[in-house]
Amino acid sequence: MSDLKSFQSFLYQHIPLVAHMQLQLQSIGNNELTAVAPIAPNINDKSTVFGGSSAALMTICGWTLIKYNLEALNIDNDVVIHKAQTKWQQAQTDDLIIKITTDKEIDWKNLTDQLINKNRSTKLTLQCEVNNQNHEVCSSMKGDYVILKKPKQ
Amino acid sequence: MSDLKSFQSFLYQHIPLVAHMQLQLQSIGNNELTAVAPIAPNINDKSTVFGGSSAALMTICGWTLIKYNLEALNIDNDVVIHKAQTKWQQAQTDDLIIKITTDKEIDWKNLTDQLINKNRSTKLTLQCEVNNQNHEVCSSMKGDYVILKKPKQ
Repeated sequence: MSDLKSFQSFLYQHIPLVAHMQLQLQSIGNNELTAVAPIAPNINDKSTVFGGSSAALMTICGWTLIKYNLEALNIDNDVVIHKAQTKWQQAQTDDLIIKITTDKEIDWKNLTDQLINKNRSTKLTLQCEVNNQNHEVCSSMKGDYVILKKPKQ
Repeated sequence: MSDLKSFQSFLYQHIPLVAHMQLQLQSIGNNELTAVAPIAPNINDKSTVFGGSSAALMTICGWTLIKYNLEALNIDNDVVIHKAQTKWQQAQTDDLIIKITTDKEIDWKNLTDQLINKNRSTKLTLQCEVNNQNHEVCSSMKGDYVILKKPKQ
């Protein structure tokens, strides 16, 4: 699962809502992710983006940024979303651009040490956005994710 | 659209994600709503409920409580979610029970007056929960919704 297409296939196979929303991963780095999704499967009764879709897309994209980087480091600890503060700034009438960023660079070396050598759960806070095709922010989410330590055998 | 089944059909027809999640409305009063959804379309890679699904289900159920009551009052103003604080307390491995409540009773008479006579947007804060079959809270959301005033002609 080291490349984007394989990771996306994994998501589609195991999380049916992600397949329904037609999320397409575009790029992932150590501290950022970009993805897109068409409006059609994510539309609401007012022909704008359904707020629940944008929340779900931001949730899975934040998770993906962490999980994808952990896999590249051969770490298979579970990642879960713990808390989120979400705002819907304006109605959106076109396809979605999802962006994940971080306020400061993630220290993957220290994080690996906490997880593997000290077997401690660690927390990461991510900034998530859904932009429209004019690159205006239509919804945003500050998401706290937890990488769980391994349960005792 | 005055009864639950018709309202659910409306949701399924106009918001494809709600149809995919198989949300089933069970009861709606002036200040509370109960609904259910099976885990199968809302599952994740760990065979627990996908956090994005629970967020989307709480979002639409809060919206439904407001919209359904407004329609009963013959008010067709738009309702949108504006902000949410969401927590995922524990992993869930069974079907979802969604509950919407309010901290204090909604004053529908005053709200109607604000919307119709004064043409002012109004805000409602709702408490949303997803429970498991043991009636334990697995995720919760404090959601701020806005009922929009009518645009000037």
